Amino acid sequence: MLVLYSDFGIDDPYLGQMKAALLRHGQREVPMIDLLHRVPDFDARAGAHLLAALQTSFAAGSVFLAVVDPGVGSDRPAVVVEADEKWYVGPDNGLLAVLAARAQALRTWRITWRPDGLSTSFHGRDLFAPIAARIAAGVWPAEALAASAGLDHRMAADDLAEVIYIDHYGNAFTGLRAANITREARLAVGRAQIPAARVFAAVPCGQAFWYENSVGLVEIAVNRGSAAADLRLAVGSPVALVT
Amino acid sequence: MLVLYSDFGIDDPYLGQMKAALLRHGQREVPMIDLLHRVPDFDARAGAHLLAALQTSFAAGSVFLAVVDPGVGSDRPAVVVEADEKWYVGPDNGLLAVLAARAQALRTWRITWRPDGLSTSFHGRDLFAPIAARIAAGVWPAEALAASAGLDHRMAADDLAEVIYIDHYGNAFTGLRAANITREARLAVGRAQIPAARVFAAVPCGQAFWYENSVGLVEIAVNRGSAAADLRLAVGSPVALVT
Amino acid sequence: MLVLYSDFGIDDPYLGQMKAALLRHGQREVPMIDLLHRVPDFDARAGAHLLAALQTSFAAGSVFLAVVDPGVGSDRPAVVVEADEKWYVGPDNGLLAVLAARAQALRTWRITWRPDGLSTSFHGRDLFAPIAARIAAGVWPAEALAASAGLDHRMAADDLAEVIYIDHYGNAFTGLRAANITREARLAVGRAQIPAARVFAAVPCGQAFWYENSVGLVEIAVNRGSAAADLRLAVGSPVALVT
Repeated sequence: MLVLYSDFGIDDPYLGQMKAALLRHGQREVPMIDLLHRVPDFDARAGAHLLAALQTSFAAGSVFLAVVDPGVGSDRPAVVVEADEKWYVGPDNGLLAVLAARAQALRTWRITWRPDGLSTSFHGRDLFAPIAARIAAGVWPAEALAASAGLDHRMAADDLAEVIYIDHYGNAFTGLRAANITREARLAVGRAQIPAARVFAAVPCGQAFWYENSVGLVEIAVNRGSAAADLRLAVGSPVALVT
Repeated sequence: MLVLYSDFGIDDPYLGQMKAALLRHGQREVPMIDLLHRVPDFDARAGAHLLAALQTSFAAGSVFLAVVDPGVGSDRPAVVVEADEKWYVGPDNGLLAVLAARAQALRTWRITWRPDGLSTSFHGRDLFAPIAARIAAGVWPAEALAASAGLDHRMAADDLAEVIYIDHYGNAFTGLRAANITREARLAVGRAQIPAARVFAAVPCGQAFWYENSVGLVEIAVNRGSAAADLRLAVGSPVALVT
Repeated sequence: MLVLYSDFGIDDPYLGQMKAALLRHGQREVPMIDLLHRVPDFDARAGAHLLAALQTSFAAGSVFLAVVDPGVGSDRPAVVVEADEKWYVGPDNGLLAVLAARAQALRTWRITWRPDGLSTSFHGRDLFAPIAARIAAGVWPAEALAASAGLDHRMAADDLAEVIYIDHYGNAFTGLRAANITREARLAVGRAQIPAARVFAAVPCGQAFWYENSVGLVEIAVNRGSAAADLRLAVGSPVALVT
């Protein structure tokens, strides 16, 4: 499975061009999944924590084409990462750093190949897609890669006590993994202290709560309402556990 | 054909995860269509009238994965509906009730299977997708289902004299089917009374009219403008026929 | 490759219905690409310049289903265009006129076929999709077409010195092709005069610049910011070269 992850949005002509490039470079047999194209714009840090959570539900052998790349055209390296039998193709700007830090087994390569006609602003289409297409098709692009001793841009494996994503309902994902947090804990958000609930339906309409969302993160929600609007949350808003 | 219908939006990581689940559960050969993922949030009633209209243009044998599920995690049943040789998989909360009420031939089953690791908030991915994938692949999941005597949550077959959807142009779909309405009728919307027109191009720019839209519903539109903005329409706004 | 291009948006049920029609009419083997469905609403002129730029990166043999069609239901012709070994199916309202004017080799046909049950408002689904599906599948629909002596609605091959598209980052595409413009030129936009830069990363955060974007157009951007917001740009805003 080839999994696409970016901040390209889905309204703009970028995703279609990248998919056309994938098809041109041999990616026709493997199913493609649009996982998320609304990573907060330019935000490799939020994107790194979100990708680390989202990738857990994909099987070994999956290939991720992950592009949040505000430094495109600068000298930030382009890389391939193998982490716990999944492959990731993207920029070395932090986006892949959290999953790399948490991996049991890690190998990294720099993409040394530069295609003719490489644009200065769209390496997702011109550089990363051809490499990802070949890996997804089972053809290792050895001549395009040079093994490296890890990523340049490293991040800790720790959780991030911030809002990292807000969905269209207004639910706010944090970078905290729920597995290690007691359900007795309250979550401090601004002046509010929010209790846990197991499901939306367990809470009166309009009330805020936190819960373990479907990708294992602590999420702030309001039953049939918008937590982002009610609590004035944005990507980057700090949260704290109160136990 | 497997047809996806939800209020998940297309900006968020939900749709991609649900499609990955469909692929994991054997849905690789049948074409998948994203019919609509912007059903008004949490609104199973508007969603029910819209789905009843939209499904008419799909052929017998189509399988619909339909998820508008604000009660996820509560005890609302999960069901499979066969209505006039089309299949529907989703929650029993009204979403499937209008098409069921209008069907000539109806059979219903409860989904009794519960997968390991079922999340509390995302049955679209964990429960409904695996069932829909198998039905679309031609494998009836008999051991996962129990025949039932109809839906718990029933609705009338009647039309709904309200706005049920607003598209990005600002056109407002109502829950009224146009087939039985004379073109002489005017539509009362707030203080306005709106005449019918056959096509956009028959009306001066900026003027409001109603017409039979491409799925057979009465739709309020403004030629090259936004009916929703001009007439202050929202999902749920009442309309009335004046004959 | 079958390439879809429209102002249907991706939030609404139009695209799914059009794809279902493509599948019903035999388009199952050829990969489909959603290039753009956010052409500025009703704006065949901006859409024409954008399509002329975007199509350059697709290979000979590609088939474009291009629908921006505010005159649907009027007597505007429906056409097939072959321009430099690519095919285009859509309305003859200007949308295809810029690429036609720039083509080395051009052939045009009118679609004379009218299907049973043709809606008045959705020829993308009912008329254009069946024709495009057959062409993409390699079956020329000769009996549905009549050769014509060019398009009715013609436009010049010249560039357009206006903003023609704004992406979700706030970058503004113009209708100027960058290939013939010196990098010394400044771009006058309102009262501002904007210099060129090669890449985003070459410019301080918050500063406006123009550059040759990934489809060869002059684009106005702000590094990690929104040019549209900062410079109050909208589709149609005039720009001028200052050399």
